[in-house]
Amino acid sequence: MNSTGENDLSKLCIHTITTRPWKIEETAQHFSAAGIKGITVWRDALEGRNIKQTGKMLLDHDLTIVSLCRSGFFPAKDSNKRKSAIDDNRRAIDEAADLGTPMVVLVCGADPSQRLEDSRKQIQDGIGELIPHASTAGIRLAIEPLHPMYADTRSAINTMKQANDMAEEFNSPWVGVAVDVYHVWWDPFLEIEIKRCGENGHLTAFHICDWKVPTVDMLLDRGLMGEGCIPVKQIRSWVEAAGFNGFNEVEIFSTAYWKENQSEYLRKIIKAYKDHS
Amino acid sequence: MNSTGENDLSKLCIHTITTRPWKIEETAQHFSAAGIKGITVWRDALEGRNIKQTGKMLLDHDLTIVSLCRSGFFPAKDSNKRKSAIDDNRRAIDEAADLGTPMVVLVCGADPSQRLEDSRKQIQDGIGELIPHASTAGIRLAIEPLHPMYADTRSAINTMKQANDMAEEFNSPWVGVAVDVYHVWWDPFLEIEIKRCGENGHLTAFHICDWKVPTVDMLLDRGLMGEGCIPVKQIRSWVEAAGFNGFNEVEIFSTAYWKENQSEYLRKIIKAYKDHS
Repeated sequence: MNSTGENDLSKLCIHTITTRPWKIEETAQHFSAAGIKGITVWRDALEGRNIKQTGKMLLDHDLTIVSLCRSGFFPAKDSNKRKSAIDDNRRAIDEAADLGTPMVVLVCGADPSQRLEDSRKQIQDGIGELIPHASTAGIRLAIEPLHPMYADTRSAINTMKQANDMAEEFNSPWVGVAVDVYHVWWDPFLEIEIKRCGENGHLTAFHICDWKVPTVDMLLDRGLMGEGCIPVKQIRSWVEAAGFNGFNEVEIFSTAYWKENQSEYLRKIIKAYKDHS
Repeated sequence: MNSTGENDLSKLCIHTITTRPWKIEETAQHFSAAGIKGITVWRDALEGRNIKQTGKMLLDHDLTIVSLCRSGFFPAKDSNKRKSAIDDNRRAIDEAADLGTPMVVLVCGADPSQRLEDSRKQIQDGIGELIPHASTAGIRLAIEPLHPMYADTRSAINTMKQANDMAEEFNSPWVGVAVDVYHVWWDPFLEIEIKRCGENGHLTAFHICDWKVPTVDMLLDRGLMGEGCIPVKQIRSWVEAAGFNGFNEVEIFSTAYWKENQSEYLRKIIKAYKDHS
């Protein structure tokens, strides 16, 4: 918050997927016109485009490119699939470098046909294999723990503790942790693990939205801050107490909001950010 | 498993809600005819019935009444609601005594309008208030940790560690823990916490089903054992290594299965139990 006790927009970042109906060129115009300073780019938004030129276009709109979302998905029973995943992660790192962002967010993956402990081992192996490439490219990899309801296919890393353990083990400047309130708000050890993450220098991204009550779809029913039961301000205070001073990234997947007029939705996002973040 | 390496039915219990379309009298007949030895009764199945007579009817069908499901739902911002919850829990304990089962399963509750830590405190207070009544009635209360996707309204107790911590704090013969694979399968500390639970003498119930991939409904899309990604056999081996020798309770909420012919569904349950538990 600024000195008036209200959020200005200087630390607000919005993910391209949040306003998915817009093409990235429209997104840039609308964000910029609204005074938003940060953007996180999802890879689908770059399809069919020259990535370097797109990065320049975003900079020309005075946008900081906070991160590229997303790669990961390391685990697979089939070793060829694991190799393909590594190749795709290398491409993501190259895309991030071309785009001009310092970070790639990892959704680590899980293969439901094998044990979670095997998926976890493959995630660790996969990230380890990427670190040299990340280092050369100057791109940081952010492990994002995902909600346990995604442990079947999206991520076998489901708590801040697991992400912290893994980042500590790598002990690399190229591996950090992305905290998304949607995934971790329920965790009784959240405050402790956020503190630990910050102390380790691993707290590299902070994503916000809300958990609607009820939530009618496990993937595409996220809410705006203030619409649900996540104590976003409290979690943000923990993140900031842990030393984080980066962007607050609004990442919302919502079939309902994607159907709305996106300009009006953007105004709602800004209001929710000011009032409830 | 028995000596042939296949599950016989001597430790199979099925929840009345699993075959919800049947009235409890039909359920008793079908379970008994199929050679099933255990039943857990949901309170809705008792509506409009004399509970003592219903308990006797189940015993007459050679069924062990494993537990009564469910009470709990302690947290509420409004103190009158908390008081009502206590009253309802007392009634559940009385119903369990009338029915002739030694255990009530607690779905502990959560109020999304307050912090999780407040809900957790109210759960602890609520259970503490019930212990004398439970003791007098000879009924054990089983804390069931629920999946974190239910932390908004159903339970602020979301891991085995939380349930173990709470049961340890009470250190009462009338407070135990119910392990349901659906809620806890994702937890990297599951094996350790199951061991701890058994060593403490708190492991009092074991519920099984499976997590379908994909899961299309957060509440009513549970799968039969073997249909999803939960390592049911592995978790059962941990539970048994921790000293548990009670019933394996099949608890499945499934709109799809409730639409099927329930006799055919019961055959599927038995086959899934034999092959994948």
